[in-house]
Amino acid sequence: MKITHVTPGHYRIPLPRVLSDSTHGSIPAFEMVTVCVQTDAGIKGTGYTYTVGSGGSAITRLLADELAPLLCGCDPRCTEQTWRQMWRHLHYVGRGGLAGFAVSAVDIALWDIKAQAGGEPLWRLLGGASSRVPAYAGGVDLHFTTEELLAEMDDYLAQGFHALKIKVGHDDLKQDIERVAAVRRRIGPDVVLMLDANMRWRLDEALRAVKALRDFDPFWLEEPFEPDYEEAHATLAARGIPIATGENLHTIAEFQRMMDRGGVSFVQPDLTNAGGVTGWMKVAHAAECRNLPVSSHGAHDLHVHLLCAVANASYLEVHRFGLDRFLAAPLTLEDGCAVAPDRPGHGLQFKWDDLEAFRIASGDRSQA
Amino acid sequence: MKITHVTPGHYRIPLPRVLSDSTHGSIPAFEMVTVCVQTDAGIKGTGYTYTVGSGGSAITRLLADELAPLLCGCDPRCTEQTWRQMWRHLHYVGRGGLAGFAVSAVDIALWDIKAQAGGEPLWRLLGGASSRVPAYAGGVDLHFTTEELLAEMDDYLAQGFHALKIKVGHDDLKQDIERVAAVRRRIGPDVVLMLDANMRWRLDEALRAVKALRDFDPFWLEEPFEPDYEEAHATLAARGIPIATGENLHTIAEFQRMMDRGGVSFVQPDLTNAGGVTGWMKVAHAAECRNLPVSSHGAHDLHVHLLCAVANASYLEVHRFGLDRFLAAPLTLEDGCAVAPDRPGHGLQFKWDDLEAFRIASGDRSQA
Repeated sequence: MKITHVTPGHYRIPLPRVLSDSTHGSIPAFEMVTVCVQTDAGIKGTGYTYTVGSGGSAITRLLADELAPLLCGCDPRCTEQTWRQMWRHLHYVGRGGLAGFAVSAVDIALWDIKAQAGGEPLWRLLGGASSRVPAYAGGVDLHFTTEELLAEMDDYLAQGFHALKIKVGHDDLKQDIERVAAVRRRIGPDVVLMLDANMRWRLDEALRAVKALRDFDPFWLEEPFEPDYEEAHATLAARGIPIATGENLHTIAEFQRMMDRGGVSFVQPDLTNAGGVTGWMKVAHAAECRNLPVSSHGAHDLHVHLLCAVANASYLEVHRFGLDRFLAAPLTLEDGCAVAPDRPGHGLQFKWDDLEAFRIASGDRSQA
Repeated sequence: MKITHVTPGHYRIPLPRVLSDSTHGSIPAFEMVTVCVQTDAGIKGTGYTYTVGSGGSAITRLLADELAPLLCGCDPRCTEQTWRQMWRHLHYVGRGGLAGFAVSAVDIALWDIKAQAGGEPLWRLLGGASSRVPAYAGGVDLHFTTEELLAEMDDYLAQGFHALKIKVGHDDLKQDIERVAAVRRRIGPDVVLMLDANMRWRLDEALRAVKALRDFDPFWLEEPFEPDYEEAHATLAARGIPIATGENLHTIAEFQRMMDRGGVSFVQPDLTNAGGVTGWMKVAHAAECRNLPVSSHGAHDLHVHLLCAVANASYLEVHRFGLDRFLAAPLTLEDGCAVAPDRPGHGLQFKWDDLEAFRIASGDRSQA
């Protein structure tokens, strides 16, 4: 089987509601870059990546100008070799960063092809025994009023979630404490509550915050610091608060360092920027070797397969940047668990006609 | 003073002679991405970055779509704040990789403006006391025949160099040994000889190579491994061979880790991918704090200013990807030393008309 065409698409997707966190401020839209990989066997694979609003046109160029010429003629099933070739080809302008996003989108499409060719859903091809994994609702809600925040919590519980996450990282720590206290009161002691600081703090600030916030029994604290500060993560983890991080780590080496330093308790690779299915599985296995659980970030429609496949799965994040309205069959939730589809491949089918209105032409930022 | 326009340009520059190393194979051309920053004060700054052949169109999009809108209206002299803003703006698709190349090009242009505004050459604005720094000739010659290699050495010596570098990393170690032996015989015992493996080896291979090659008194061994393997670098350095690395480290955190682990003896940041003048100076200062010398990679027309400015300068690399034929006033060499120009700014003046023939239009790879 040979790859014949690699076609990227670049979209800006307005969010139904403006979201917010401590690093990116208000987030009115996200960018999605899709890639369609066609083969001479008639099988087509689909991959995608996304950004918080910047870099999509550069990713599109990497796909069109650098990776497409490299991939055409390759066997899409040789995912290890192709992953390494793409990584090497972009090494000088890599190793992580934007190159990781482009490689990820392609790798997802190749696994889609391989699973379709085998007639298997991706989770089973990867070795999974069950198609269900516990899920949590990931809120992006730093600037919601307390009333809006509590209404969001009610909505999550009504959807059947037993675990949920809210943002922290206000200028005034008191605001964080009040909001977390209000949420814990509303959801009761048995619902799992995660907190996410989106890299906002320095070590002194995090130590002060953790001292106050641990009273509310957080399941994990996510991204207290920028990901380069591994030692600060380790210092905080050593004080007994589980640390989650990964969405800003884009290479297996970056994950390995954070794990080696003891800076992470829940490993959260995002397959759309950490090297696709191939990169994500390497990170999950490296975590397993250290007895660390793996979770996910974003892209729940794809991560559900991966978390079903590994032995060290923690919660799947169900993310607010969901693509539900553009998917023929959105993710199914049953009693707080996500259910991976049984269709061959990853089973993600975009409603391309509906997406068309949000396409960005090359160099056109008029929709920005 | 305010920035009014940020204009990128993308070029593919054929090399006068096909060059080669152990990672990139044959290199017939390099890519250059320029950026012109205009201000309301009439001062224009010029920056550039380059790649070994991939990623230029993505860098161009980052400059046009992401950084230009961010920069217009900013004061170009506030280089610390602007550097941090660019870095943060591209963080999710950063931190290093391609984002670093785009940030670097802009930062170089901003320092050019600041130095012009002050009427100073860049080396003096940065604190330098002298405009001269020892230089070495950096060969990119892995696949030259021994005769061609020795002719290259003669040429370097005739140009006045007292230090030079050749590539190693052949499939057969014997070839490396024979070539290094032949070069050492030709140049004599007093000329400084550096070796560059371009990340080719694993630890076992490097240990075997070093055992044989140290007889020829290498001043440093450059890039024995991929840059993520800090421990392997440290293991080799601990055996007494000085290690040089940096061209593939794109963030100050990546340099800091390599230095902390003891994996580098000569630190080689490239201002065109490690964050421009601002990023390069941070790395140089961090090296100084550890009593480590700083060298450079490529872009000798710019690095000459920076090495003249710092207290811990080692040799400047004079690189084969030189831009001489496109510069109004190429770098001056005097008795093996490079001389930084006294013109205000960095003093680099492109012959834009000559470059025009090598321009790549957006999305056009016909010249690739």
